[in-house]
Amino acid sequence: MTDIVDWVAVDWGTSNLRAWGIAADGAVTFSRNSPKGMGKLTREDYPAALSELLDGVTGTRAGSIDVLVCGMAGARQGWLEAPYLEAPTDLRHLLAGAVQPAMPNTRFAVSILPGVCQKNGADNVMRGEETQLLGLAALRPGYTGVVCMPGTHSKWAQLSGTHIDHFATAMTGELFEILSTHSVLRHSLNGPLDGPARAEGFVAGAEAGLARPQDLLGQLFQVRAGSLLSGRAPDWCAGFLSGLLIGTEIGSNRHLIGAEPVPLIGSAALCALYADVLAKTGATGIPVDATDVVLAGLKAARSAIA
Amino acid sequence: MTDIVDWVAVDWGTSNLRAWGIAADGAVTFSRNSPKGMGKLTREDYPAALSELLDGVTGTRAGSIDVLVCGMAGARQGWLEAPYLEAPTDLRHLLAGAVQPAMPNTRFAVSILPGVCQKNGADNVMRGEETQLLGLAALRPGYTGVVCMPGTHSKWAQLSGTHIDHFATAMTGELFEILSTHSVLRHSLNGPLDGPARAEGFVAGAEAGLARPQDLLGQLFQVRAGSLLSGRAPDWCAGFLSGLLIGTEIGSNRHLIGAEPVPLIGSAALCALYADVLAKTGATGIPVDATDVVLAGLKAARSAIA
Repeated sequence: MTDIVDWVAVDWGTSNLRAWGIAADGAVTFSRNSPKGMGKLTREDYPAALSELLDGVTGTRAGSIDVLVCGMAGARQGWLEAPYLEAPTDLRHLLAGAVQPAMPNTRFAVSILPGVCQKNGADNVMRGEETQLLGLAALRPGYTGVVCMPGTHSKWAQLSGTHIDHFATAMTGELFEILSTHSVLRHSLNGPLDGPARAEGFVAGAEAGLARPQDLLGQLFQVRAGSLLSGRAPDWCAGFLSGLLIGTEIGSNRHLIGAEPVPLIGSAALCALYADVLAKTGATGIPVDATDVVLAGLKAARSAIA
Repeated sequence: MTDIVDWVAVDWGTSNLRAWGIAADGAVTFSRNSPKGMGKLTREDYPAALSELLDGVTGTRAGSIDVLVCGMAGARQGWLEAPYLEAPTDLRHLLAGAVQPAMPNTRFAVSILPGVCQKNGADNVMRGEETQLLGLAALRPGYTGVVCMPGTHSKWAQLSGTHIDHFATAMTGELFEILSTHSVLRHSLNGPLDGPARAEGFVAGAEAGLARPQDLLGQLFQVRAGSLLSGRAPDWCAGFLSGLLIGTEIGSNRHLIGAEPVPLIGSAALCALYADVLAKTGATGIPVDATDVVLAGLKAARSAIA
């Protein structure tokens, strides 16, 4: 690890700020993290948060060090809004849509990549995932098909090489969180949630969701009824709720899945669950490391004009 | 209005306690309300809450005054658990399943009606709605078909006269509440929600839900995208979210609707929205007054052995 870099790659999300030093040959020279995500910052805090994280970093050339940022720093409520590209579009155009926020000195020359939006009755937005998708296209040149990105707001994107044709967002992770915390179902999840019945509950929920994705509103209440009538333990109920939501998400997107394995980009634990549920439909999910694709995406975005 | 009664009918829900004096000819002699619903009471509070509400009530005969209670007072976390009858069942059996909680004196002889449950892979519970359904059967003898009961936890019950064949619960109202309050969608609902665009948003949401009930997880995020991309106002977003949830609920239960108009039991405002969405499917919804059916149900339950 060295602090001498050609440029700096940054993923600035809602919860975290991550930076990697990149050498002229593309090698990663350092990796640094900070909890200063968009959610904790006001607009004025960004320059200092970045300078602090990049303290001691030196460029291999004279002049400013380029810093290329993707993620929520470019949101309207972030550092400086980077207006969305509109899908369908070629993700190699990301850098052309970047914006340059002001810094108090010339040490760093910052560019923030745009997100991607979709209009015409299928209104949708992504910010951060577009860079991961470009990275996937760089790591698997020519891949054509759907990409599933599980998370708080899961994305399902249809990719043809570096071209994004269409995408959708499923509020699966957030729904699990608010149902567990704020709905009547919380009474059924009041206890240890990682017990041995969780896996069994997950399978039951996933099968229910896959079989009847149109009945999510009705099937949710079975978590409560299961604990009241059948004495289901909190771990079973948590597994059922998680499986039901993921099964419903995958069941409703099944028509997008072709013959090729589906790349899964997200946390390793979540991708493993999605791969299990995909297997029940006869499809295959291939977990892809999320850090690998974001780094590959920032490199690919930069090389589009380099 | 008089405090002299033959017996007292009580609907004891989560939020409210309501009592009606009933004369020997079935006429209502008084109507009283209290905010002392199950949610605000411990087990020990029930006798005093009831005595307080029925202060001054006198029986037409010597001895204790019968008080017949339906609703959450019979839940495990209520006054005294009245174990569920299991569907399919005849609702004329409700009184036979009632329990008698202890009172500090013999002025009132209280019976609490059971709820109805469903097992065998379609786990479900209702408590209070079964009495309304019996009331509907009394007011519309012989009605056979589905009954929709919109609310926090909407019920869809299949009735043949006084016989309940099957039922389901949709967490529609609760989902609207927690999504509005706790999810990322709250940012799109931050402002006046009863403006002129609400009706337009409701129609757009209802049509989206009816068209694709299997895609609720995906369509929810369009509330957020609609405000970010298309400048949708909070009233439009609230209408869209409400319409999307109700449209999805009705869309996923469409196969239950036959040629006959669908009785709608719930608040007048909510029943009107459901009737509008039902009309888009070519069906007709007939709002039925919820107080009328609960009173008719308590009378019918009592007369089953009288």
